[in-house]
Amino acid sequence: MKKGQTKQKTDETLKIIPIGGLGLIGMNMTAFVYRDSIIVVDCGLAFPEDDMLGIDLVIPDVTYLKDNIEKVKGIVFTHGHEDHIGALPYVLKELNVPLYATKLTMGLIERKLTEHNLMRSTKRKVVKQGQSINLGEFRIEFIRTNHSIADAVALAITSPAGTIVHTGDFKVDYTPVFGDAIDLQRFAELGKKGVLALMCDSTNAERPGFTASERTIGKIFDNLFMENRNRRIIVATFASNVDRVQQIINSAYKYGRKVVVEGRSMVNIIQTASELGYLKIPQNTLIDLEQMKNYPDDQMVLITTGSQGESMAALSRMAADMHKKVSIKPGDTVIFSSNPIPGNEKAVSKVINELSMKGANVIFQNTHTSGHACQEEIKLIYSLVRPKYAIPVHGEYRHMKAQAQLAEGLGIDKDNIFILRTGDVLELGMNSARICDHVQTGSILVDGLGVGDVGNIVLRDRQHLAEDGIVIAVLTLERYSGHILAGPDIVSRGFVYVREAEDLMEEARGVVEDAMDYCNSHRVTDWAKIKNTIRDSLGDFLWKRTKRRPMILPIIMEVG
Amino acid sequence: MKKGQTKQKTDETLKIIPIGGLGLIGMNMTAFVYRDSIIVVDCGLAFPEDDMLGIDLVIPDVTYLKDNIEKVKGIVFTHGHEDHIGALPYVLKELNVPLYATKLTMGLIERKLTEHNLMRSTKRKVVKQGQSINLGEFRIEFIRTNHSIADAVALAITSPAGTIVHTGDFKVDYTPVFGDAIDLQRFAELGKKGVLALMCDSTNAERPGFTASERTIGKIFDNLFMENRNRRIIVATFASNVDRVQQIINSAYKYGRKVVVEGRSMVNIIQTASELGYLKIPQNTLIDLEQMKNYPDDQMVLITTGSQGESMAALSRMAADMHKKVSIKPGDTVIFSSNPIPGNEKAVSKVINELSMKGANVIFQNTHTSGHACQEEIKLIYSLVRPKYAIPVHGEYRHMKAQAQLAEGLGIDKDNIFILRTGDVLELGMNSARICDHVQTGSILVDGLGVGDVGNIVLRDRQHLAEDGIVIAVLTLERYSGHILAGPDIVSRGFVYVREAEDLMEEARGVVEDAMDYCNSHRVTDWAKIKNTIRDSLGDFLWKRTKRRPMILPIIMEVG
Repeated sequence: MKKGQTKQKTDETLKIIPIGGLGLIGMNMTAFVYRDSIIVVDCGLAFPEDDMLGIDLVIPDVTYLKDNIEKVKGIVFTHGHEDHIGALPYVLKELNVPLYATKLTMGLIERKLTEHNLMRSTKRKVVKQGQSINLGEFRIEFIRTNHSIADAVALAITSPAGTIVHTGDFKVDYTPVFGDAIDLQRFAELGKKGVLALMCDSTNAERPGFTASERTIGKIFDNLFMENRNRRIIVATFASNVDRVQQIINSAYKYGRKVVVEGRSMVNIIQTASELGYLKIPQNTLIDLEQMKNYPDDQMVLITTGSQGESMAALSRMAADMHKKVSIKPGDTVIFSSNPIPGNEKAVSKVINELSMKGANVIFQNTHTSGHACQEEIKLIYSLVRPKYAIPVHGEYRHMKAQAQLAEGLGIDKDNIFILRTGDVLELGMNSARICDHVQTGSILVDGLGVGDVGNIVLRDRQHLAEDGIVIAVLTLERYSGHILAGPDIVSRGFVYVREAEDLMEEARGVVEDAMDYCNSHRVTDWAKIKNTIRDSLGDFLWKRTKRRPMILPIIMEVG
Repeated sequence: MKKGQTKQKTDETLKIIPIGGLGLIGMNMTAFVYRDSIIVVDCGLAFPEDDMLGIDLVIPDVTYLKDNIEKVKGIVFTHGHEDHIGALPYVLKELNVPLYATKLTMGLIERKLTEHNLMRSTKRKVVKQGQSINLGEFRIEFIRTNHSIADAVALAITSPAGTIVHTGDFKVDYTPVFGDAIDLQRFAELGKKGVLALMCDSTNAERPGFTASERTIGKIFDNLFMENRNRRIIVATFASNVDRVQQIINSAYKYGRKVVVEGRSMVNIIQTASELGYLKIPQNTLIDLEQMKNYPDDQMVLITTGSQGESMAALSRMAADMHKKVSIKPGDTVIFSSNPIPGNEKAVSKVINELSMKGANVIFQNTHTSGHACQEEIKLIYSLVRPKYAIPVHGEYRHMKAQAQLAEGLGIDKDNIFILRTGDVLELGMNSARICDHVQTGSILVDGLGVGDVGNIVLRDRQHLAEDGIVIAVLTLERYSGHILAGPDIVSRGFVYVREAEDLMEEARGVVEDAMDYCNSHRVTDWAKIKNTIRDSLGDFLWKRTKRRPMILPIIMEVG
């Protein structure tokens, strides 16, 4: 079989294996397997769920790819968001393969590689929207799309088994702020030639209608800048939404304001984007945070991180009076140019309340548009591509199911629609499609420097500790006789305010003493059994008295 | 001054003191003080914030009322929701005063009193919508309103200082399901006579327009029952929304279905509401959960708790396959007749995903209407009542501020609008209004049987434990020499999976030994100093190695 050959043979099949990203938001990573070639699309992280206490981020388990490393030809990226590139520094340490991405995406990837000292060891190739590359038995075309970050692409992945179109995250924006509209003609052309399967973004599949163009937000900013022309304006948005930042800068320039940028990720991305030409900042517009004091309020805009209420982000620190250089003043106008991501609603509301209490005028409605396709856009892509098989991707189960229903409504056979689970191996050909296998996948938790060293046991302990704290019963025994030489002492943390519960603690000590007496009189000498006796009697006592179940930790030392 | 006299003297003032409920959702409780009379409106609980780990519920600190108990004439209730009656069993133990409420509200209160064995010790009086009572120097009129629970009232609170109108939670429903529309004429009449201040519900003050009538949801149910006539239907809604339950029962009866009720709070409230005549269930419509198996799927509706994704509620247990008697089957239709309360979005989404994965058809859009007034309704009430002063209540700061802006837009002088904080003492008269004092208020945390024994220190410890767990260093010393007799032993929980971190733990032991050597050679014998040395060196070591900061707990025992 010649490289890059695209003609479809009717008996050929390929395999699609989601390594992460199905049934959840984030951790997007998919493998495509044809004979001895594997290519990977994206390598994203996920943010921890509420019950993953203390966890910083979550990355996919790439065991399958490690086991087949000799076949893996490279990782291809659809765009530069964390849920598509964020796991890369961790994965590259286990899987050193070449990377392929458009310019801005690669710029953001290279920032990460530099931080993790991986630049020298990693092969990288920048591709253009519209370009195709060959990787092993695959030919991959990068098709221009629109999203809430520039330089996003869909992929047409062709092997002798047929062509798969993977949309990446996308929307249809006929009037984008940077670059051109999504290349609908190319989707149509591919559809005309025949597409085996469409893997389409499900994020907004429950929402009717069309997502508004990014450009509509620019007009809203112009109006807001006019209405608030006598006030200081602070705008919080997603650091990665370069087009949004561009429009804020445009409005600032139009109304004669200087722009200050605050928040580490915002500063970083703006620097990368302007170096690479994705952001055009008029001369003498950007000023340093330190220079702010030299300008009156009505000649300044502060663009900042914190639109999701993240407690350590710049805006949250300003709202809580914990920012070293910026204080919120009565009369400030603060614009949230974002919607809360599900789960962040309360955190965002807290920041809005704090800003309002300081007298700021907070604007948070109609100042954002999504980067994801709504139902009519999804239907449009299906109608252009006309795939034989539909494989909804990107989203929770409910979103994928909503897309499946749209696909069915467009006439795709129910049996040809696959809502996959992570790890499923879908074997696809012109004449058949089936889930033929399941490979090891999963979520690896990153906590500080530890990758994968916090598992279910540690998390369960953290949940237990969070709920009712810990009560430690410690005592020292004489080695041979088993007599108590010191203790029992009771130490607690997170259970009860000890100064006001001295009686309870004293009684708890008595309960442990009784348990030890019981062990002595019943000649229980096995430490495990002694500890269980202490744990049970102390646990029962505390439950009866407080209706709480702290973690009980007996510690026995011996001397002799 | 005669009781119930309503004529306003121009030099009289009264005081309004929010005991809870301002700047947050829940814990509604307000005191009105005129000379030696104090009346209290509502006595609600709040649900714990995300950082209140392990806390069950939150109640207001009523120290001010306890200190003035001889003046307190009673508590008057606006409606029977938890955020207005839920703190009562706890507060009554400190403040045994008479209670005044409409029939359904009192029915729900009595359920609580019975549970807490407080029925005999508590004076209660049922009042009717439209009725007035005298309490000390106050005359209180109960005005009919609409809300998401029946028998809701606004209050006109009259003293010689003037009349205060307190709306309670309300909406304007011209076509309510139970009873009559809000008594707008009475609001107008009071306004015509002159109202000193309006205390109006702020919950939806950010939302433009009008809240839809509860009755619109009945039509939607009829349509859904028709469309799903071959499927089993499960509806999740708020247990307290008796009118919603009534409409589901109406649709069930119309389409020949039996009704099963599941979830403890749902069963309780339906029982109370039907006993008191607020719910009309046609004969032979209600069946027991046990009888379900005798009826085909298309002849049954299950009404259940769990519309907020609460992990222990009936629907969540069904979705997670943990319900003993109901399993979700492919083809079931599950209707969420509710919107997620802010903070519950992810939990609700989890349940929707689980239900979808089991093949259920989940409906969650356009199946709910709010119980709170939107902007046009708020404007209507202001325009009827025409108060001199505006005091937005019920809601976070942002909501109260939104109402303040509405009030200003209606021509109320900015200086006459008061966004109070809990504990503020607002002194109001015809000629003046000012915050003249601040009294002790606050949030008391209830955890199990403990009321107020979990404070900031315990919560901070729980947060610390939740984040990175605990590492305990324990050792036994010889009393006089200070030599180590046993240990140091290192025990951890929630920090790292110990079986895969044996080296780290062994090194940690060495670090503690070194710290002890340092103490010995520097003649440090004070236990507090020894413990600090251990804490610092072990903390530094673990941070360097893991970038985590577990709680470090040194425990020293002595033998001698």
